[in-house]
Amino acid sequence: MKTVSVSKAHGGVQGVYQHSSSVCACEMTFAVFVPPQAASSPRPVLWFLSGLTCTHANVMDKGEYRRMAAELGLIVVCPDTSPRGEVDDVPDNWRIGKGAGFYVDATEEPFSKNYRMYSYLIDELPALVETYFPADMSRQAIMGHSMGGHGAIIMALKNPGRFKSCSAFAPIVEPSTAEWSKPALSLYLGADEGKWNYYDATRLVEGGKRFPEFLIDQGASDQFLDEGLRPWLFEDACDRAGIPLTLRMHDGYDHSYNFISTFMDDHLRWHANRLTLSGSSTVGAAASLQHVATI
Amino acid sequence: MKTVSVSKAHGGVQGVYQHSSSVCACEMTFAVFVPPQAASSPRPVLWFLSGLTCTHANVMDKGEYRRMAAELGLIVVCPDTSPRGEVDDVPDNWRIGKGAGFYVDATEEPFSKNYRMYSYLIDELPALVETYFPADMSRQAIMGHSMGGHGAIIMALKNPGRFKSCSAFAPIVEPSTAEWSKPALSLYLGADEGKWNYYDATRLVEGGKRFPEFLIDQGASDQFLDEGLRPWLFEDACDRAGIPLTLRMHDGYDHSYNFISTFMDDHLRWHANRLTLSGSSTVGAAASLQHVATI
Repeated sequence: MKTVSVSKAHGGVQGVYQHSSSVCACEMTFAVFVPPQAASSPRPVLWFLSGLTCTHANVMDKGEYRRMAAELGLIVVCPDTSPRGEVDDVPDNWRIGKGAGFYVDATEEPFSKNYRMYSYLIDELPALVETYFPADMSRQAIMGHSMGGHGAIIMALKNPGRFKSCSAFAPIVEPSTAEWSKPALSLYLGADEGKWNYYDATRLVEGGKRFPEFLIDQGASDQFLDEGLRPWLFEDACDRAGIPLTLRMHDGYDHSYNFISTFMDDHLRWHANRLTLSGSSTVGAAASLQHVATI
Repeated sequence: MKTVSVSKAHGGVQGVYQHSSSVCACEMTFAVFVPPQAASSPRPVLWFLSGLTCTHANVMDKGEYRRMAAELGLIVVCPDTSPRGEVDDVPDNWRIGKGAGFYVDATEEPFSKNYRMYSYLIDELPALVETYFPADMSRQAIMGHSMGGHGAIIMALKNPGRFKSCSAFAPIVEPSTAEWSKPALSLYLGADEGKWNYYDATRLVEGGKRFPEFLIDQGASDQFLDEGLRPWLFEDACDRAGIPLTLRMHDGYDHSYNFISTFMDDHLRWHANRLTLSGSSTVGAAASLQHVATI
């Protein structure tokens, strides 16, 4: 692993790192913020998965997470959104290829060679984080924005034992039916739409996957609300499944980092609360709803 | 004036605007954050002047000022650092030309046609802000980073009646003797170095200019500390002139926005405190030192 840059911020260290990924078969870059408390003890890890067109740098520059992460003592890991470099791409379509990995393991040529963001984030990158950073891997949380909100929710649903909590900003909750994600899924996973359900948050809940609870913030003036996001679909599924979901609609907010940064503190506190709970998931879920009402 | 973008953030509005500048003879872009309190009353104006290579966008993206500005009720104006577009430039030198206006009015051809950032920021842009935004122009403060710290301090010293307070992150305090500013000043102002003193904070204080007090934060690991910044030169001049200066050296911090964003809250609170004081400058100065000790 190569250090690209390190810089002191809010008492901690914001770093950018590069490594040769065997899963994605290319060089990958990611950002890690280590809070000051790591000097004395391993810290919980919060993953932030970014949206379409983003790299690790967007939330690092504009997410405004460091002040609160330093206060709470959270390590924040910000991965890239796709393989990079000399990999197959659809350069004239920002919703397919580089910057649009959709957090799946592609099964179709030529994308199956590199587009394996699911395994990269579940297997390869956590091992690196555990090796090189003062991380308490028994306490992990995950969040994301837009395509990254989709990624965070499916990873939580498919790995409920790993993540203590999950939240999202303006997530894509049903990628298998959203016009802006279908073209990528058909190229990555093939024409059989049944296979897309494996990476579809709403379908996963309908199919029996469970997670203690979710927090979703959504801008009411988000230009992609009706086209690609439609959080009410996931809200309905969670309601039917008995999964507590707090969906907050925010008047006037759009899809940008101005929206994310406004509510970032809320999300970090929400996760920190759950990461430090030693009780079971059920207890956590019950306690959390009261907490959400006060954040 | 044309609106480039507006986006809700922290309850206020972050906008980007463009206008045809008569002073700089080109199209100029600037950013304004309007806090939620502007809905009920005009708000004080805090100017943030950016450093070399920056546009209005750097601090807008990475400065992390909106949360606290919204809490305090401050309008934050972030101008560009030079004229733009089809203007004379020295493209192979990032310390001269575009992105390196140094907040002076150039007197030498060809730069004198466009490089007039001093008059632009003292005359033209304030008039626009007063016309188009809910601004209380009787309460203005100014701050900046690096080259913009230089700009903020000279503007405060030359216009003590306009600005209630002035602070800087890692400012260039003696541009007339710093190797990285001398080439630009010689091209903008000519070979007579005596004329450079008109825009040199340390010389201005030595020449009798006064301001109630200054707050300067400086990273101790700043790579430019000895080459271009040297805040102790200004500290000495202020000490001899009896101007209260709080210079805080911060271990481990560099020259980047990670440093700026870490201490941004402190600066905004410091300015807000002075902008709402109704007493004289002397009273403000006396009160401020106690406050600085507690921020």
